[in-house]
Amino acid sequence: MSEHNDIAARAEVLIEALPFIQRFRGATIVVKYGGAAMVDEELKRSVCADVALLHFVGMRPVIVHGGGKKISEMMSRLGLEAEFVEGLRVTDDATMEVAEMVLVGTVAQDLAANVQAAGVSAVAISGRDGCTLGACRMVGPGGADLGHVGEVTDVRAGLIRDLIAAGHIVVLSPIGVSPEGTPLNINADHAAAALAVSLGAQKLVTLSDVPGLLRDRDDPSTLISELTVAQAREMLASDAVGSGMIPKLQSCIQAVEGGVERAHMIDGSRPHSLLIELFSESGIGTMVRSD
Amino acid sequence: MSEHNDIAARAEVLIEALPFIQRFRGATIVVKYGGAAMVDEELKRSVCADVALLHFVGMRPVIVHGGGKKISEMMSRLGLEAEFVEGLRVTDDATMEVAEMVLVGTVAQDLAANVQAAGVSAVAISGRDGCTLGACRMVGPGGADLGHVGEVTDVRAGLIRDLIAAGHIVVLSPIGVSPEGTPLNINADHAAAALAVSLGAQKLVTLSDVPGLLRDRDDPSTLISELTVAQAREMLASDAVGSGMIPKLQSCIQAVEGGVERAHMIDGSRPHSLLIELFSESGIGTMVRSD
Amino acid sequence: MSEHNDIAARAEVLIEALPFIQRFRGATIVVKYGGAAMVDEELKRSVCADVALLHFVGMRPVIVHGGGKKISEMMSRLGLEAEFVEGLRVTDDATMEVAEMVLVGTVAQDLAANVQAAGVSAVAISGRDGCTLGACRMVGPGGADLGHVGEVTDVRAGLIRDLIAAGHIVVLSPIGVSPEGTPLNINADHAAAALAVSLGAQKLVTLSDVPGLLRDRDDPSTLISELTVAQAREMLASDAVGSGMIPKLQSCIQAVEGGVERAHMIDGSRPHSLLIELFSESGIGTMVRSD
Amino acid sequence: MSEHNDIAARAEVLIEALPFIQRFRGATIVVKYGGAAMVDEELKRSVCADVALLHFVGMRPVIVHGGGKKISEMMSRLGLEAEFVEGLRVTDDATMEVAEMVLVGTVAQDLAANVQAAGVSAVAISGRDGCTLGACRMVGPGGADLGHVGEVTDVRAGLIRDLIAAGHIVVLSPIGVSPEGTPLNINADHAAAALAVSLGAQKLVTLSDVPGLLRDRDDPSTLISELTVAQAREMLASDAVGSGMIPKLQSCIQAVEGGVERAHMIDGSRPHSLLIELFSESGIGTMVRSD
Amino acid sequence: MSEHNDIAARAEVLIEALPFIQRFRGATIVVKYGGAAMVDEELKRSVCADVALLHFVGMRPVIVHGGGKKISEMMSRLGLEAEFVEGLRVTDDATMEVAEMVLVGTVAQDLAANVQAAGVSAVAISGRDGCTLGACRMVGPGGADLGHVGEVTDVRAGLIRDLIAAGHIVVLSPIGVSPEGTPLNINADHAAAALAVSLGAQKLVTLSDVPGLLRDRDDPSTLISELTVAQAREMLASDAVGSGMIPKLQSCIQAVEGGVERAHMIDGSRPHSLLIELFSESGIGTMVRSD
Amino acid sequence: MSEHNDIAARAEVLIEALPFIQRFRGATIVVKYGGAAMVDEELKRSVCADVALLHFVGMRPVIVHGGGKKISEMMSRLGLEAEFVEGLRVTDDATMEVAEMVLVGTVAQDLAANVQAAGVSAVAISGRDGCTLGACRMVGPGGADLGHVGEVTDVRAGLIRDLIAAGHIVVLSPIGVSPEGTPLNINADHAAAALAVSLGAQKLVTLSDVPGLLRDRDDPSTLISELTVAQAREMLASDAVGSGMIPKLQSCIQAVEGGVERAHMIDGSRPHSLLIELFSESGIGTMVRSD
Repeated sequence: MSEHNDIAARAEVLIEALPFIQRFRGATIVVKYGGAAMVDEELKRSVCADVALLHFVGMRPVIVHGGGKKISEMMSRLGLEAEFVEGLRVTDDATMEVAEMVLVGTVAQDLAANVQAAGVSAVAISGRDGCTLGACRMVGPGGADLGHVGEVTDVRAGLIRDLIAAGHIVVLSPIGVSPEGTPLNINADHAAAALAVSLGAQKLVTLSDVPGLLRDRDDPSTLISELTVAQAREMLASDAVGSGMIPKLQSCIQAVEGGVERAHMIDGSRPHSLLIELFSESGIGTMVRSD
Repeated sequence: MSEHNDIAARAEVLIEALPFIQRFRGATIVVKYGGAAMVDEELKRSVCADVALLHFVGMRPVIVHGGGKKISEMMSRLGLEAEFVEGLRVTDDATMEVAEMVLVGTVAQDLAANVQAAGVSAVAISGRDGCTLGACRMVGPGGADLGHVGEVTDVRAGLIRDLIAAGHIVVLSPIGVSPEGTPLNINADHAAAALAVSLGAQKLVTLSDVPGLLRDRDDPSTLISELTVAQAREMLASDAVGSGMIPKLQSCIQAVEGGVERAHMIDGSRPHSLLIELFSESGIGTMVRSD
Repeated sequence: MSEHNDIAARAEVLIEALPFIQRFRGATIVVKYGGAAMVDEELKRSVCADVALLHFVGMRPVIVHGGGKKISEMMSRLGLEAEFVEGLRVTDDATMEVAEMVLVGTVAQDLAANVQAAGVSAVAISGRDGCTLGACRMVGPGGADLGHVGEVTDVRAGLIRDLIAAGHIVVLSPIGVSPEGTPLNINADHAAAALAVSLGAQKLVTLSDVPGLLRDRDDPSTLISELTVAQAREMLASDAVGSGMIPKLQSCIQAVEGGVERAHMIDGSRPHSLLIELFSESGIGTMVRSD
Repeated sequence: MSEHNDIAARAEVLIEALPFIQRFRGATIVVKYGGAAMVDEELKRSVCADVALLHFVGMRPVIVHGGGKKISEMMSRLGLEAEFVEGLRVTDDATMEVAEMVLVGTVAQDLAANVQAAGVSAVAISGRDGCTLGACRMVGPGGADLGHVGEVTDVRAGLIRDLIAAGHIVVLSPIGVSPEGTPLNINADHAAAALAVSLGAQKLVTLSDVPGLLRDRDDPSTLISELTVAQAREMLASDAVGSGMIPKLQSCIQAVEGGVERAHMIDGSRPHSLLIELFSESGIGTMVRSD
Repeated sequence: MSEHNDIAARAEVLIEALPFIQRFRGATIVVKYGGAAMVDEELKRSVCADVALLHFVGMRPVIVHGGGKKISEMMSRLGLEAEFVEGLRVTDDATMEVAEMVLVGTVAQDLAANVQAAGVSAVAISGRDGCTLGACRMVGPGGADLGHVGEVTDVRAGLIRDLIAAGHIVVLSPIGVSPEGTPLNINADHAAAALAVSLGAQKLVTLSDVPGLLRDRDDPSTLISELTVAQAREMLASDAVGSGMIPKLQSCIQAVEGGVERAHMIDGSRPHSLLIELFSESGIGTMVRSD
Repeated sequence: MSEHNDIAARAEVLIEALPFIQRFRGATIVVKYGGAAMVDEELKRSVCADVALLHFVGMRPVIVHGGGKKISEMMSRLGLEAEFVEGLRVTDDATMEVAEMVLVGTVAQDLAANVQAAGVSAVAISGRDGCTLGACRMVGPGGADLGHVGEVTDVRAGLIRDLIAAGHIVVLSPIGVSPEGTPLNINADHAAAALAVSLGAQKLVTLSDVPGLLRDRDDPSTLISELTVAQAREMLASDAVGSGMIPKLQSCIQAVEGGVERAHMIDGSRPHSLLIELFSESGIGTMVRSD
């Protein structure tokens, strides 16, 4: 009989999730997934199951993934050297080929397979497919030539909308397409923000390895739970944000200014942090909202 | 931090529900709700929230309700006397008027309101609406005249299908419509079974006040977990089934023979018994399946 | 041969109805049906057949019914006393229960059955179903506490639109739903007007027991055939309108100001007055139009 | 007041038409219209108004017209001579050109305009449009060369279905299209029957100048009200049928054998004979049904 | 092997057409077809095949035809005399009857048959069908009574849109419908322009017998390739345009001012001039565009 | 003027393509593209433009690509050794990873980009996406363990159908998904055949480096233009087919037996061989049809 009591307790949990399920029913949630959180196999399985659950309770999750570490690994195996300018990967022809090959051919396929293992049909696409992520070349800091590094100029979300409507979860690789049709390496945080804006998403959730934005970079107890776009801009200007968090915070600002209701930065290495963020009043990590 | 741990544990529960959510996604579940389980206000709220949850995780629940007790109460308040022949309510004109008034005007409205309180749009209809429950008069035991008591002859499920497709949860009162358009009093268990067959439901779940079918009526420890239609027919023939359970068991047989995959009799007075039945491998109560 | 001549004459009548049929094809017509006109069985059958005919020639009729008399009868049978403040029924818990039970469970079902007898599928719903009639409590004259008496605050017409589109005639009981989900007693004239506005109806037709608005309350020969909203407001201010006609005239004003093309008050006890109003140039009763 | 009484009487007539309106709601009715009934302007206006009425009360009428007399007139004006072999018009190139020109360019346009005058959108098409009436050349009696005379081999009803669904009344000229794309002169009775079968029509109604089929050709009092296909075949074999009625009776047989429920031959010169046939129990003229 | 080389060269041609096919994919193109270009059988077949090709590569061509010469011929055969006032055909009752008969019953049918011979379903309609070309009587120069000559007042393009969407090519005869429902003779150039505006067409292409607009009427080498609406108005005012070209140039102006992107006047007697205009950068004939 | 003459000649070519365009309009054509024909950049561009043209003239082409050579190259760059058993690549974990990475991440992306350069939206997917190519492990010749080599067991074509219906050209990588969700290496010829059957394709066209099937392997003049399935089976049994052609011929047989009308093997290195095959009566290469 104790099994049943246990099950009854579980049923209670389900019932308590009802208000959150209702609140986000039909909502589009763009999940940026990257960093160390993506390397651990067990964690990856768990995150993908969380995303599948969001789908099953009526939300519309889309995954945009990163994968810098995997690219660097493959470059090293191929005897190529990675070069960075202020954190931006200089992307020559060989690097671009490897980046596309690894992101589209390995990382995205792997994530899609994990989502499918949780019972939902998944489709992995590149930002080149259907010209989803239109982009142009980006000039580097101080005018540096970054090669095939791009920034998103226009998102054609039709393909992704169709796939969502047909019941698939989309896994998008952050490869852009230049006006000439060639691939461009896009920062995944920015790609996720641009996509969230274009889809009219309710939320952008960035899963990374840190708990969120800290007032004091070195003191985890100074986590900022919530800040407005204005406050976020101020922090960026004040140089208080660590370099790893800069593109994430920029993306949150970009998303919220583009109409996304809320943008979150949470710790993807905590089990079920995605569900906790969505299914509890307080949330974890840092949330950016409009002023 | 303990709140978050708690939430993480809850998230785990949600994840564990995934396989069940997948299994019954899109499934139509007819819930027959009646008896004492319907009298307790707290229990009623809880059952309706459970039904709402089924809706939110992608199932298509329909409620068919009973309400004999409420009818008897109103008759007594109006100074009318209830008469029964072998458990069947003899339904003269005055009784029919009261039955329809109470079931459609009070019981169904109340259940629909409880469902709506859990966040889903609900619509209460009578079996007369849209000629949903076509019926003819039933002859009583030994040819007794039961008055306006009917049995379902054909179900026009179009109205209910439309309402489900539009996102409402339907609460159906077991009033049938005669070929002449007059109301007929229908046994709610039979109405639920006929509806389940007509909708091509995956499940019929009968919530009552008892744990299920007992091998020895007086010994709760002799609960039968599962039986085939053939075994169920045998039990009915052997006179081993208590009179209260006879229409429920008959309805289960009728449903399964009509193509419903599984028919369950469970204890509606146990909290969340509906969810437990659907979200655990073992289930509770008694399940009837085809041979 | 004389039968054929007769039929030919009838065919001629049908042909003469053509221009009116064309004019109102596809038009939504809200019919407020109440008062003594609803008590006579023969009249009720006739009115419901008229409504069915409107449906068959391509209009979209919706019925909103009253039923104060039936409520009072049942209260008296149950030993409850009816209390009124300036014509408004004070609605305590017991009264509310009876009102909902009688309107939804008896009056609406009966009207729907009469419509179905004329060959169209009918569905009776309460204003609580699908939260169709959102309402809040109304303060009585002089701040009097009227109990569960409400006024409509927002109409969610989706459910009714869906039912119309699916080919059903809707019969709506004037029960509102409070923000807390509890039932509220709504004046049927006001409910009909609010619904007509929300549906974008072409016409609101109020069937009552009097020929229309009289210039001299005591002289039936002073019937006003047509007046503008401004004139109607003037009459209300001048105290020239009998108390029974006040809510009807108010509703006509409310409807026309909300965009309904024309609002009519006609004598429901005259055979086929509804058809006569729609199928003749002159019309009968009183018509309110915008200035 | 007498006007109102008159209107009330008319309303009563409308109500009495209800059962017939219901019975044929949504039914497709192919009306073959030809002969002298088509020459009188007043009669033509009246028939087209009747067809419009059928549309307005929910049926789906389609007109197939004849026009031999108009063709002969134009040929005579152009100095061409009409030639017939056993009632079949020998159709050389010049005759074909005139036939198409007159039927499509004058007769059909005129009928469509009359329908539009009754308030429904009408579209006149030829059987060549959309390859609606696929046909092949017909060999004449005794192997006679009839020129461009054809018989229908396959009907592509898609265009007509689309036009009906879009709310138009179609007026079809009986011109067929040969495999080579050239026009062929088709007997209008046969064209109507073939179309009725292809559309799955409920009724084929042939309007001509005679009351129907007579048992004794010379005695109008011997009108046959109803006969089965077998009886109709017998009559044809027995030579009892006048030559003008032969193609009409053949078409009725062809229609009923092809699944049309009932085929009628009625007197189009009697006012509203079409409505009388549809809106009275007894009917007029001759009706053919399956055995 | 040489056949294959030849085919390879042809394939190359197809490939080179790709950019033009893409550019006009989905574009609505109204083709005004008339004059001598319509008389030559071989040319007619070729033009209709060109129109069919436009359909097959994804454009939406509509044909509006003329036919003055055919009308005059028939009038002469019938012993009627044609009368013109400044190039406008005075249209008495007899002339109107002949015009409609010939245009709708012969010319349009013939063009539709030619289109169908090229493999696309075609439907010939008159501007009266579905009240497509609403028109009113036009007063002639100096107040002359032109009889049944009309100018387009409103286009109801619904029927044509439906036919296009269903995959047919529409051939429209320039017959208008007066408010009374009678036919009116419409200038085909003006009808085409009005239709192009109403359909939101990308192009109006007028096929006539001359190469385009000449700066010097008598010198074919002075062809104007392109001019703006302002320049076109200037030319009209300056009396530099030959009378035959006046309505064509007016129609081009009317179309472009109504939102059509470009209006072309080309020589329909040159083989495939329509395709050449659409599938080459330079184009032939004269093109009018907005300022 | 000579440019225009040239254009007119081109227009003539377009017109001559009409009958073929009609014949295959709406037809699904699966193009297997692989081998040396895929290595040459110019040829690849040309083939992709040909496929785009098929799309523009109304066909529904799908590309299934190979890429063994690219896989071997990358393996060699990574210091991995390729192993084959009777022409089948033994696929250990490392090989599988490389194969998926190269096919999905590089080859398919590159082809999709080439198609998009020709103006059609393209989407590259793996057979794992949406579980499109369900597969199981294949046992090698003589029971050899081939590792992650699979054969298609069931095709879920829904995703591809949706993408086609939305106007994209799909490029499919021949990666299957095992029941456990892991990737399997599938022979591209077999994948193409299975897809063609599942889509109900009219044609399977295999582009390779050879002209087709030769009666005498060493004599190009012995090309077999056409053979039935029975003849094809005979040839396979007789050992007359070179090892490279065996899977291609098997796939043709599999496709035709599965309902594909015709299966072609053509020389992809000949410019526009695909168009020539579809737009000429005689065709090139070898065609397999049912007996």
